[in-house]
Amino acid sequence: MTTEAITAELVTRVQRAHTLGTVGELLGWDEQVNLPPGAAEQRAGQHAALAEVQHAAASDPRIGELLALLQARDALLTPDQRAIVAHARRDYDRATKLPADFVREKAGQGSRGYHAWARAKAADDFGGYAPVLEKNLELAKREAGYLGWSGREYDYMLDKHDPGLTTAATEKLFSELKRDLVPLVRAIVASPRAAQAREAAAKLRGFPVEAQRTFLREVTAALGFDYARGRIDVSLHPFCSGTGSDVRMTTRFNVDQPLDALFSSIHETGHGLYEQGLPVAQLGTALGIHAGMAMHESQSRLWENQVARSRAFWRHFEPRWRELFPVQTAGVNSEELYLAVNAVEPTLIRVDADEVTYNLHIVLRFELEQKLFTGELAVRDLPAAWGAASRELVGLEPATDREGVLQDVHWSDGSFGYFPSYCLGNMIAAQLWACVQRERPEVEEDFARGDFAWLLGWLRGNIHTQGRRFSALELVQRITGEPLSPRHLVAYLRERYGALYLG
Amino acid sequence: MTTEAITAELVTRVQRAHTLGTVGELLGWDEQVNLPPGAAEQRAGQHAALAEVQHAAASDPRIGELLALLQARDALLTPDQRAIVAHARRDYDRATKLPADFVREKAGQGSRGYHAWARAKAADDFGGYAPVLEKNLELAKREAGYLGWSGREYDYMLDKHDPGLTTAATEKLFSELKRDLVPLVRAIVASPRAAQAREAAAKLRGFPVEAQRTFLREVTAALGFDYARGRIDVSLHPFCSGTGSDVRMTTRFNVDQPLDALFSSIHETGHGLYEQGLPVAQLGTALGIHAGMAMHESQSRLWENQVARSRAFWRHFEPRWRELFPVQTAGVNSEELYLAVNAVEPTLIRVDADEVTYNLHIVLRFELEQKLFTGELAVRDLPAAWGAASRELVGLEPATDREGVLQDVHWSDGSFGYFPSYCLGNMIAAQLWACVQRERPEVEEDFARGDFAWLLGWLRGNIHTQGRRFSALELVQRITGEPLSPRHLVAYLRERYGALYLG
Repeated sequence: MTTEAITAELVTRVQRAHTLGTVGELLGWDEQVNLPPGAAEQRAGQHAALAEVQHAAASDPRIGELLALLQARDALLTPDQRAIVAHARRDYDRATKLPADFVREKAGQGSRGYHAWARAKAADDFGGYAPVLEKNLELAKREAGYLGWSGREYDYMLDKHDPGLTTAATEKLFSELKRDLVPLVRAIVASPRAAQAREAAAKLRGFPVEAQRTFLREVTAALGFDYARGRIDVSLHPFCSGTGSDVRMTTRFNVDQPLDALFSSIHETGHGLYEQGLPVAQLGTALGIHAGMAMHESQSRLWENQVARSRAFWRHFEPRWRELFPVQTAGVNSEELYLAVNAVEPTLIRVDADEVTYNLHIVLRFELEQKLFTGELAVRDLPAAWGAASRELVGLEPATDREGVLQDVHWSDGSFGYFPSYCLGNMIAAQLWACVQRERPEVEEDFARGDFAWLLGWLRGNIHTQGRRFSALELVQRITGEPLSPRHLVAYLRERYGALYLG
Repeated sequence: MTTEAITAELVTRVQRAHTLGTVGELLGWDEQVNLPPGAAEQRAGQHAALAEVQHAAASDPRIGELLALLQARDALLTPDQRAIVAHARRDYDRATKLPADFVREKAGQGSRGYHAWARAKAADDFGGYAPVLEKNLELAKREAGYLGWSGREYDYMLDKHDPGLTTAATEKLFSELKRDLVPLVRAIVASPRAAQAREAAAKLRGFPVEAQRTFLREVTAALGFDYARGRIDVSLHPFCSGTGSDVRMTTRFNVDQPLDALFSSIHETGHGLYEQGLPVAQLGTALGIHAGMAMHESQSRLWENQVARSRAFWRHFEPRWRELFPVQTAGVNSEELYLAVNAVEPTLIRVDADEVTYNLHIVLRFELEQKLFTGELAVRDLPAAWGAASRELVGLEPATDREGVLQDVHWSDGSFGYFPSYCLGNMIAAQLWACVQRERPEVEEDFARGDFAWLLGWLRGNIHTQGRRFSALELVQRITGEPLSPRHLVAYLRERYGALYLG
């Protein structure tokens, strides 16, 4: 068989498994958006049956044979072929190297862990949750071991979400960020404008859902989301699922917090544009899959923050906003709107945090989960460590574990190493944005005219169509000409929020 | 292995295939209700991948072994076990006895046939469609042969949709029905009230969609559709899909034909109540699947016609209807509403036909497709035969094939033998209804109070919870104490429509 023929067969089999995976993803979307409340058990049966056939497809022994053939002639492969093989190998190892008993144990523990967390959070009882967390840590380390990451277990957790990412690289980035961001946040919070921003946001009340829907559809379509290849619906928690020609976002509406649905939809639009920009014919291979969660998050953050919180964006959309909500916006001037859009307020709760302070919540989690993996921190000491870190970083100390270590769902099913992607996404977005401003100084004038095509084209060419040929860090270096650094994020935050709060 | 253990393993494997089938059904629902227009090709890939794994599960050789073990001890089986084995055997044979080449050829022909039909219908060109139809007939006969029905090919087509149904039985029922129904239709059409009914229906205009949605949700919930285990959405053509705890109906709205969405939703509710009434733990086995398309159709027709076109039904719902549409209903009195609900008008087009004449459209198709299978009628002679039969039965002759033999999609992909279910469903509904009236003479008084619980309970106990233990004809005999006969349908139509049009 020629290398081309082997690669073609590999791609066919890999894509078959991927296609079954997308069916599972659709089941998940449907569950959040459409499922009748009484159908949960029936849906669980569908998920289980599909997961089984998907796993069988992903662990097809023929994939292993084809990978071995291609890896034996590694020197002859083109860069694209090499990328395809590396990604397929990664998936194949994950599908085949974990013993079935372990997978079962982990799935059971994940489900029990979720319920234990929900109970512990409701009862503010960390003690009841601690054994679950200890078990989850143990399983995570065993998983890393099965896949050949013994001794580098936290590296494995990072790599799982962001191929190529290491603890050392993340630590360096986060410690630099922390050094510069903590004093900036302190200064902003102390500014008298912080209270004005909160007051401005509180003025936005009574925005009818239908008009909110109209506005956010117009906005997201203007940004470039293709509604012929995607849709937006309502769910309890906003998310984006699907890929290629069928990308489905969700949002949720609150008549008294109209910026929530709008900005969460723009955030999901960033994810959606990335998925719609992947080459459809290559879906499921390294050439048709995103470069990891940090890069994904950079796309959602760039559109949400750099673009949609800018003055230029609102110069274009404010008239339409006032037209749709004439009564509700009558007592709010343009500067108040801009302040509300860029309100900063420290909070104990990550998911309520603004663009500036959000990063510190992530640094906190990274520092703690990393220490959990090294053993430097014991699970039973987490609440105290959380309190101290929260005071140092966010400037607030939780009175209860419910507002502290029990607030997030992630660890309850063993999803360690995911948090850093959020903050790395912000860093990448800021560094890309600095590059965009160099390459097209008039980009904000585009926005003020409602023209986002240049920016989308730039992201398409540089990122979306690249698939997973490069890791996120490699891609950032290639595009911007320098390694990822938090200085762009700090500079961007200083420029936007400094001008607003400290000017 | 004990018989119980073998049966349990069989059920597990059969239900696994069934569950994968329900995922495919959900993909189909989603395609009609949610799919972005640009995602058709991606969805086709998902369908194909899922069909492949579903087929592999349904043709699992272990199912064949278990069936052989159980059939060898047939005498020891309980009636339920015997029913489970019979149904599983039927599914297994269909999954395994058709050669892969044949399945591929038929799938390709089905797809080409659909497009050829759409083109031929648009161009009113039967000549371009005739070769497709000949090929479809040939494939249908070959399929019957593979499954052991050589020489009884049309029996196979009937049995495929209604287990146990034969050509001879259907022919006897239809010829009796025809004898009595044709003169009744002639008399109704000649009545001066027929024009009044059409005028009354034409008065119903400008009904806002949102209020229509509210009304039909209230009505269908009152009939017993459980919205905690199902939902209703909008699609181009109304349908009902799903089973057990996740039953999904669709409808479509026209502001100037408010009875359309209402009655199509009640029709789908009848299907939905059947599916919601199947025992969830047995789904996919003979104990948790409907008894065939005719019985299914009987449920939709009973609720749509016997129940929802009755005076008693409207005695209860008319005030709410007027409350929701005060302006639109101001010029329509109660008698006009009842006339509009029961308007009769012969039409050339089956899908536009009313409850009375609909049956004649089915008799026509049954007679023709049966002759196509015996060879008594050649495909090229179909248009002329259609014209003659249409004049005899419906009293109208199509001027074009588009209004005649080209009107239905069914034959284009080889779905022969499906039409009779519609009319048999009407017969069964009428015979069940006669039985209901005997067992509970005050049933219409229930309706007038908005109480449909007794009727639903009766259908649940007698039909829904029976699954496929019995064929439709057996079940009718067991419930009503006599073989299926068209006389109840004729009597019911005479009573309702005779009183209205000939009284």
